[in-house]
Amino acid sequence: MVDILHRIGVTASPDAVYAALTTVDGLAGWWTQDTDGNPEVGGVLRFRFEPGGFDMKVLEAQPGERVVWEVVDGPEEWLGTRIRFLLKQEDDYTIVLFSHEGWKEPVEFMHHCTTKWATFLMSLKNLIETGKGEPAPHDVRISNWH
Amino acid sequence: MVDILHRIGVTASPDAVYAALTTVDGLAGWWTQDTDGNPEVGGVLRFRFEPGGFDMKVLEAQPGERVVWEVVDGPEEWLGTRIRFLLKQEDDYTIVLFSHEGWKEPVEFMHHCTTKWATFLMSLKNLIETGKGEPAPHDVRISNWH
Repeated sequence: MVDILHRIGVTASPDAVYAALTTVDGLAGWWTQDTDGNPEVGGVLRFRFEPGGFDMKVLEAQPGERVVWEVVDGPEEWLGTRIRFLLKQEDDYTIVLFSHEGWKEPVEFMHHCTTKWATFLMSLKNLIETGKGEPAPHDVRISNWH
Repeated sequence: MVDILHRIGVTASPDAVYAALTTVDGLAGWWTQDTDGNPEVGGVLRFRFEPGGFDMKVLEAQPGERVVWEVVDGPEEWLGTRIRFLLKQEDDYTIVLFSHEGWKEPVEFMHHCTTKWATFLMSLKNLIETGKGEPAPHDVRISNWH
C-alpha cells in the first residue's frame, strides 16, 4: 500500500477551510465545478470531470479538524482508497495535511494524481485566500493526461 | 521506505528537458537560482535556498532518458535518498516521471516536500515551454514553511 501526501498552509481560519471541504459550493470552487451530493457523514459526494469522476462516501467530518472520504465509485486504482484532510492552526495559517491512502501499486497514474492533487490543493488555497480557485474544467493542465 | 512520485508532461523534446536537468543554467532556471557544481556523472551539484540546501551526487545521466541523483548533504530526512527523472515521449509531450525515493518515514516534512516538488516541476515545465520558471527565491509559496 502506498500513499500520496501533501501539506499546504492557508491564511484563513480552520472553519473557513473546513467549509470549503464540507459544502457542495466550497468543493465546486476548487476541485470540480460538477460537484453534487450530500456532504454530511454517511452521505455520498459526486465529483465529475470530463473523462469521468469519483463518488466519495463521507466517513468523518469533524468541524475545523478533519474530513475523511472513502472512494466508493471511480477508476479501479481509486476504489477503496481513502482521502483525509487534517486541519491544524500554526502561525497565521491553517495547515492542511492531506493524504490519499491505500493505493495498491505506485503506478504511473498515481504519479499523475500526486501532481494533480498539488494543483487542486493550491486551488483550494487560492479559493479561500482570494475568492477564486481553479476547479475543473478550468484546472491547471499538467500533461497529456490533463 | 516511502517515495514521492510525480508526473508532468512538457511540450518539448526529451533533449530540451534533459538539458534543463543536466546544466547549471537549466537547473537554476526552475529549482533555485543559487545552483552550482558539476552536473556530470560522478560530479556533485550544490543547490541552496534561504533556509539551507542540498548537495546531490549525479549517479546517472543518460541523454534524453534519465537523470538520477543521490543526496549527499542536506537535511537529515533527505540524506541518502535518491531523486530520479525518467523521460519518455508521448503524443507531443516529453513525460517526466519523477521520484524522490527512500524516505524513512512519512513525516510532515515529506508532505511539504511532495507539494513543493509539484510546484518546482511545474516551474520546470514553464521554464521550457515559456522561457520563464519560478526558481527560488521566487518560488511559489505554499505555507508557513514556504
